[in-house]
Amino acid sequence: MPPSPIRPRQARAERTRSLIIETAARAFAKHGFDGVSLNDLVVASGMSKGAFYFHFPGKEQVALAAFRAKQQELIDRLMADGDGGAGVADQVTAILRRRAELVSSDPSLRCVIRLGSELRARSDPGSEFASFQDLATDTIGELIRRGIRAGEFSNRLDPEASARAIFAWIVGMDSLSLLDSAGKDLARRTDEVLALLMPALTAGSSRSTRRRH
Amino acid sequence: MPPSPIRPRQARAERTRSLIIETAARAFAKHGFDGVSLNDLVVASGMSKGAFYFHFPGKEQVALAAFRAKQQELIDRLMADGDGGAGVADQVTAILRRRAELVSSDPSLRCVIRLGSELRARSDPGSEFASFQDLATDTIGELIRRGIRAGEFSNRLDPEASARAIFAWIVGMDSLSLLDSAGKDLARRTDEVLALLMPALTAGSSRSTRRRH
Repeated sequence: MPPSPIRPRQARAERTRSLIIETAARAFAKHGFDGVSLNDLVVASGMSKGAFYFHFPGKEQVALAAFRAKQQELIDRLMADGDGGAGVADQVTAILRRRAELVSSDPSLRCVIRLGSELRARSDPGSEFASFQDLATDTIGELIRRGIRAGEFSNRLDPEASARAIFAWIVGMDSLSLLDSAGKDLARRTDEVLALLMPALTAGSSRSTRRRH
Repeated sequence: MPPSPIRPRQARAERTRSLIIETAARAFAKHGFDGVSLNDLVVASGMSKGAFYFHFPGKEQVALAAFRAKQQELIDRLMADGDGGAGVADQVTAILRRRAELVSSDPSLRCVIRLGSELRARSDPGSEFASFQDLATDTIGELIRRGIRAGEFSNRLDPEASARAIFAWIVGMDSLSLLDSAGKDLARRTDEVLALLMPALTAGSSRSTRRRH
């Protein structure tokens, strides 16, 4: 049976969509949501308006897709680095430091903090953007559960509640880093957060108690 | 010597300015920065355009003044409650809980979280809004110093760095609370933050060590 003719067309459509998202992520990271027009995105993609609108009817939709794709890419890259035999506390430290490095240096991943900050301020409860938090809080929650199982984190922690609180911390740190230094001080701010986060997670854990006595 | 005729005029100008700020704070808290036009604010103030523009040339200026006045009012009210003989850790807990209560229930103080979230996303490094953080971080830094002096907080804490990190936490919590529940879950989120913040501040303090041994 010959291959279905729909397959190459789908693959081409997906490549086009990825190309638009990649270009848009860089533009939003550099100029912010209000600093980019839909027409800028069409021009930057090198496509006709018709071809572009087939994929995305408006700027809001491109922004949501760009944020989502880059959020997923960032988390995949951070989690793929593996534990390298390190303890969970050391992993969490390494992940947050690597995160600061990646969003500062990668011209498209930076849209996670800039577009994230802007979309948060303009999105409502129940919106598509609001649902994007789950990916981050689920990832953090899983790390906390691992730390508790390993005896490194306090077993009095509620993993879901702690994950929500830690995600809020990251979000606030991103916003203030943008406000103060256009993101340049993110590595320093990450260390300031870690200096409080680590004792918060480990205080009263079986390991910290063993170490103390 | 008769009183200078400029005094009553100044006092009247200040009352007018306060009235505009009060009205604007409520409007921004309810409808957000983008949901309020300069004309809405003029109409709500009951003044002529000329009288209004004498005080504020544009919406951005009114928003900055409203945020600043309400941020100051919120901090003054929180700090004025006094320590009532409680320890510093209990004070910090009480202040953050009372904050959630006030910004949820007071129709003008709510602008601190809503307008704050919006102005953060649209302000640049070096902007007037960026400088408003100092009031919050100085207040938090002073509480941390008191806690260290009292032996309740770890003396390994850097008060300035910790204050910046805690302020980022509050800011992120506010943004996510708005995004998830239009601010309705702020009390719950505050408790989730406190569950991590308290061990972070007290772990390794002389009191916690005395208690443990």
